[in-house]
Amino acid sequence: MNQHIAFVTLGVLLCFTSLALGGKVLVFPVDGSHWVNMKVIIEELHSRGHEITVLRPIDTWYIKASSPHYNTITINSSSGFDEKLFGSFVTSTVNMKRQGASLWTRISLEYDLMEQFFQMHKQLLKMVGEMFEDTQLMLSLRNANYDLVLTDPAIGGGVLMAHRLGLPLVLNVRWTVQGEGHLSIAPSPLSYVPIPTGELTDKMTFIQRVKNILIYLFSRLQIWYVTDPNYKPFVRHYFGSDVHYMELFQAADIWLMRTDFTFEFPRPTMPNVVYMSGFQCKPSKPLPEELEAFVQSSGEHGLVVMTLGTLVDKLPEDIAEDIATAFAQIPQKVIWRHKGKKPSTVGNNTLILDWLPQNDLLGHPKTRLFVAHGGTNGIQEAVYHGIPLVGLPLMFDQADNFSRMKARGVAKVLDISTVNTDIFLEALKEVLHEPSYREKMKELSSLHRDQPMKPLDHAVFWIEFVMRHKGAAHLRTESYKMSMIQYYSIDVLLFLLTLVLFVITVSVYALKLLWQMIFYRRKAKKE
Amino acid sequence: MNQHIAFVTLGVLLCFTSLALGGKVLVFPVDGSHWVNMKVIIEELHSRGHEITVLRPIDTWYIKASSPHYNTITINSSSGFDEKLFGSFVTSTVNMKRQGASLWTRISLEYDLMEQFFQMHKQLLKMVGEMFEDTQLMLSLRNANYDLVLTDPAIGGGVLMAHRLGLPLVLNVRWTVQGEGHLSIAPSPLSYVPIPTGELTDKMTFIQRVKNILIYLFSRLQIWYVTDPNYKPFVRHYFGSDVHYMELFQAADIWLMRTDFTFEFPRPTMPNVVYMSGFQCKPSKPLPEELEAFVQSSGEHGLVVMTLGTLVDKLPEDIAEDIATAFAQIPQKVIWRHKGKKPSTVGNNTLILDWLPQNDLLGHPKTRLFVAHGGTNGIQEAVYHGIPLVGLPLMFDQADNFSRMKARGVAKVLDISTVNTDIFLEALKEVLHEPSYREKMKELSSLHRDQPMKPLDHAVFWIEFVMRHKGAAHLRTESYKMSMIQYYSIDVLLFLLTLVLFVITVSVYALKLLWQMIFYRRKAKKE
Repeated sequence: MNQHIAFVTLGVLLCFTSLALGGKVLVFPVDGSHWVNMKVIIEELHSRGHEITVLRPIDTWYIKASSPHYNTITINSSSGFDEKLFGSFVTSTVNMKRQGASLWTRISLEYDLMEQFFQMHKQLLKMVGEMFEDTQLMLSLRNANYDLVLTDPAIGGGVLMAHRLGLPLVLNVRWTVQGEGHLSIAPSPLSYVPIPTGELTDKMTFIQRVKNILIYLFSRLQIWYVTDPNYKPFVRHYFGSDVHYMELFQAADIWLMRTDFTFEFPRPTMPNVVYMSGFQCKPSKPLPEELEAFVQSSGEHGLVVMTLGTLVDKLPEDIAEDIATAFAQIPQKVIWRHKGKKPSTVGNNTLILDWLPQNDLLGHPKTRLFVAHGGTNGIQEAVYHGIPLVGLPLMFDQADNFSRMKARGVAKVLDISTVNTDIFLEALKEVLHEPSYREKMKELSSLHRDQPMKPLDHAVFWIEFVMRHKGAAHLRTESYKMSMIQYYSIDVLLFLLTLVLFVITVSVYALKLLWQMIFYRRKAKKE
Repeated sequence: MNQHIAFVTLGVLLCFTSLALGGKVLVFPVDGSHWVNMKVIIEELHSRGHEITVLRPIDTWYIKASSPHYNTITINSSSGFDEKLFGSFVTSTVNMKRQGASLWTRISLEYDLMEQFFQMHKQLLKMVGEMFEDTQLMLSLRNANYDLVLTDPAIGGGVLMAHRLGLPLVLNVRWTVQGEGHLSIAPSPLSYVPIPTGELTDKMTFIQRVKNILIYLFSRLQIWYVTDPNYKPFVRHYFGSDVHYMELFQAADIWLMRTDFTFEFPRPTMPNVVYMSGFQCKPSKPLPEELEAFVQSSGEHGLVVMTLGTLVDKLPEDIAEDIATAFAQIPQKVIWRHKGKKPSTVGNNTLILDWLPQNDLLGHPKTRLFVAHGGTNGIQEAVYHGIPLVGLPLMFDQADNFSRMKARGVAKVLDISTVNTDIFLEALKEVLHEPSYREKMKELSSLHRDQPMKPLDHAVFWIEFVMRHKGAAHLRTESYKMSMIQYYSIDVLLFLLTLVLFVITVSVYALKLLWQMIFYRRKAKKE
């Protein structure tokens, strides 16, 4: 009996402790594939006893209104994110590349895409503005006493909200609204930090360094066009004219980067950057029985897995036919995630599916090769499981991501505009039979896995750190508050230069005077 | 019986496994207080089953020839390290400061110190050269098949040896031969990275930024004077004229930095930098009985601990008297590590000792205050145990170290040239009675301790990582191999500027030609 009471007391105590330890997190996510990533962190936070509230726009694509892992607040407004639209851009781009479209068509499509991003940010800020004006919503957000805001800064909503609520800020980031994450906080010498999407490495020739700087300048121009006209007036209106919107991003306490140095080339970083590449990866689970039987039937030859991501709804039929023909000619079994019309040339060894358990397939001991489009998630899963790659990058950062894998000798990359049966088949054979691909990928995988802490645990540690200490001020520089002239010490250098010139001038003048005095005296003497 | 055999088999297996897991580490240490640090890592490595060999010069001060933790190879040559000499410099400096010496005396002492460092590096390189020429020694080092070289790059011996043997390199570092560790590998914008020994913070006024750059330039000049004439010819002789000696340091696989961001201000860092400040700290052990009785007699007032490090052999008598007088006037008990003549004014509350168990005293619940000279070890132990500081910096980096603690509000810093009873007493009272010192130090301590891994475990993880992967190439940039013109993209910028100027010139010329053509045609028409 006494023992029973003791146990109950312990239970109540544990319950209170867990409540006392549990934090409150406000999440402002980005929809689409970004949400898939965010959900992994949310579920882990929830499993550790934290209470998570997710802000979701009314027209969200992926974010469910109810979940066992988090509460939601539905905003009666659109975030401007339109997955279908981006999907159609991918399809258009692929078609355009296949048809060898004119420069004008290419530029026009690029411009259309920029315009779409512009509209997306515009609509997002409209939504955030409406939230800011909704006094009841803001009051309830304030009263909820969140410990921090967790957001993906690819759009600026969460960053603006954190500032409005005066809350610590943790970023789940690969891109900010101003490009690749590091560019906003860490020194990035353009001589060895390749800027996406240039497909360059950290070892560049002179011409490549010229290209890198031009890409940087051009991407700044694009970003300036897309974000400045949206964020500048918004921030001026709500936070005053002395705040630049990027300062709000730079003020983040912790940057959880969805990358690490098996993906990124070595480059300067900052004390509050935490690398968590592969945080979404986990050991594979057993496959469904039928699928397992198919995979096992591959025997010693093993399995090839192919998927081109969620955004491609229709691959042009000619490529699909070419790929199917190539697949039919290898002794491996193939599982291919393919939507749309089934190619007529599909071989007996190829299983076409609408959806596939990617992580479980990549972790299967029979899997030999992964044909992918080059989204970071897929590449990181391949690295985690040690499966070499054949790349068919379509658009966005995909070719650039693959160029990083190519530099490490773990991927063969094809050009979607020229790929055909022969080229595809040759690539498959090369990666399947040339042992270096597999060996180097195993090595890369072992480097990736050999960390003091699992990436997801590491990420959660730093989120909880921010809860415990109400931020991470000691890891965060405020150097971004300096002007560029101050940051680069241009004022000091000019001052020192002026000083040196002044001293030289005075010295020269004094010497001249001295010389004249001596000279005139001599002259006078002579005379 | 069968069970017995099974156990023996298991034992043999475990033994083999341990042999298979155990690595072989060659340590090239720096003598003096640096060795105290290195020994902590060596003992930890040894406890994990690694085999450590330490290179020790014949005239070493601290490195014992035999130890249960490591093997030694005694080099029949001097490393040039002379602790007594540095001790006498500290004494001279303190005396000079007390006597308000002339500028000329100060410069002359500074020059003498530089000269000593010059001679030390010269003698060290003589020793390393003799080792390189000793074919039998080098053969045995090669045949030993070490996994890596672990060294403190405050002198260059280990770095040179690692390159000679072609081994991976791990640095246990706060200084390289070119100054503060980061300066050799991470971008260090002088606008917010304060250069030791300027006593500046990461938030500087214009004048302070000027000071910071001048200090940087001056320290480069000093370093150039001390190291270049020694290392340049040595490296040219043994490794060829295309190798700059700093490249050998920059090629290190892992930089174990004896600092973290409770000490350092936030600044850019690199992927292969591991912060291990406080790796030498551990929970306190019980004090010897007599000492414990003395400490307990302090009652509610608690204890003050004072030590000025190992290098001061004689504190000037007048300061010692002043300090003793001040101590006698506080209700706390005092334990003071003091060598030399016992001051006549020592109070009943003060216990003078030749040596004290610093870590155990700082970790004692009665301890309220630590009076220290500002060596990094002492400061890190104070942060670890959360004890606020009164600083009496003497020379080297000590004042600069304390300025970092002062900026965090956890230390009151005194000037050795002006300190007297009143000033010292006031400082003691301020730190003892103003709660902010204690509170901020507790906070700093909690930040320091709140890490995913204990600093020593973290350090050892990365040493073992280098063993497992034969280096850490993927974390290490080779950008240092670029020339400064390439690194800062000056060539590319000049090229682009030339291009732009060319285009402008051609355009202007073309427009002028066009204008002339039109103008002349009109003129011709009129005529």
